[in-house]
Amino acid sequence: MGFKEEITDHFLNGHQKYLRNISVDCIIFGFHENELKVLLLNAKYAGQWALPGGFIEKEEHMDEAAKRILKQRTGLDDIFLQQFHVFSTPDRSTKKINTQFLKTSGVSMEGSWMFDRFISVGYWALVDFTKVKPVADVFSDACEWFNIHTIPELILDHNDILQKALENLRAQLNYHPIGYNLLPEKFTMPELQKLYETILDRTLDRRNFQRKIFGTGILKKLEETKKGVAHKAPYYHKFDLRKYQKALKGGMGFEL
Amino acid sequence: MGFKEEITDHFLNGHQKYLRNISVDCIIFGFHENELKVLLLNAKYAGQWALPGGFIEKEEHMDEAAKRILKQRTGLDDIFLQQFHVFSTPDRSTKKINTQFLKTSGVSMEGSWMFDRFISVGYWALVDFTKVKPVADVFSDACEWFNIHTIPELILDHNDILQKALENLRAQLNYHPIGYNLLPEKFTMPELQKLYETILDRTLDRRNFQRKIFGTGILKKLEETKKGVAHKAPYYHKFDLRKYQKALKGGMGFEL
Repeated sequence: MGFKEEITDHFLNGHQKYLRNISVDCIIFGFHENELKVLLLNAKYAGQWALPGGFIEKEEHMDEAAKRILKQRTGLDDIFLQQFHVFSTPDRSTKKINTQFLKTSGVSMEGSWMFDRFISVGYWALVDFTKVKPVADVFSDACEWFNIHTIPELILDHNDILQKALENLRAQLNYHPIGYNLLPEKFTMPELQKLYETILDRTLDRRNFQRKIFGTGILKKLEETKKGVAHKAPYYHKFDLRKYQKALKGGMGFEL
Repeated sequence: MGFKEEITDHFLNGHQKYLRNISVDCIIFGFHENELKVLLLNAKYAGQWALPGGFIEKEEHMDEAAKRILKQRTGLDDIFLQQFHVFSTPDRSTKKINTQFLKTSGVSMEGSWMFDRFISVGYWALVDFTKVKPVADVFSDACEWFNIHTIPELILDHNDILQKALENLRAQLNYHPIGYNLLPEKFTMPELQKLYETILDRTLDRRNFQRKIFGTGILKKLEETKKGVAHKAPYYHKFDLRKYQKALKGGMGFEL
């Protein structure tokens, strides 16, 4: 199928494959060079950036739909993801955007399930930045990482969704293995501290941070030091996953 | 419209009024005579008890739909409610139940939006038991309070939804004004402790509980004592709402 046939088919027949009026949006967080990043798509249909998202197949669990979308955009399986909020303002309709999109694509159509209002379930996901190969979907020109401090104006309420995801991520910092999922297998203490600082959006006292993190017993110090650092090369650490998950069960129990 | 006409209209034309494939289920918690209770409907269409629920109108915010449903079942406005989880297993279809229901109601129908699978968003709500006048809906024979320890087998996955709501309520006990919403305006310390014990499903040490609760400064002691108590009548207390909400902002910060 060519592009025109593909979108015509999706707009005319998609409701036979997918549930109506409900969609999924994914906020995919990555951490790289001391920046918290989020993966966005450049949506052809809007000429604007948007969160990756999609629809739920008629016989598919919603979590599976989210995993499928994440796999398509990142190439990764087994991503840590968390359903966090449902977005349902009455003006969540893409009718205007979609009508314009079809017109410029040379497709003429009276009605479509895609003109309806969609209630969207937000999932945030944590990925190892170094392992992701971003892939655009058929409705997008590009799939790229953005620093969370320089997010452009997104379509619909996607800026609100992203903001809410960030707030939820912060609130969950002591209840989910966020460090484990966002960092490479081995990391230095300055890198771990920077991750916490970036998510919380404030600086932390170094000695206090180290005392509290080491106090939880969730880190294993390796013999290896980081190469190529100016002076006093820091040691690598890794998480003791069993202890980490045990500590998380009741919340980490430390205020940073 | 008679009952038969009403259900025929709902099954044939309801999708013109409501969004498809998505519904709302409400877990309405009340506290009475030291028991945590939940409001259930006896569903005609299933011959079983069910959580109160409903659909979202085409131009309605989902939170407003939940409020509308709560108002219809309890008679109350301004109910404290919390969206907590989306339920989306692929087998959430009421086709079998609904087909049987139509048959026994003498209605014959080939297809209906009501035969589709519904993804359901769960809301828990906290109400002042003494103010609720339970009202059944057109699809139900009765609307009654059940002790959470003696819940019958509910339709579909409603037992799972209720269980998840309870877990979420427990986890949120220190982050939401749960006591304020479930208790009458004035209450005794034994009543407050019993509320916490009932939600947490374990006993608490009386002196420890009182020390911690008083330590938060959220209670005001009244001059009035409770009448009709065998010996040593306990004083009434009420919440200082401003201090309560301030304390909740960062979590109450006490482990019970």
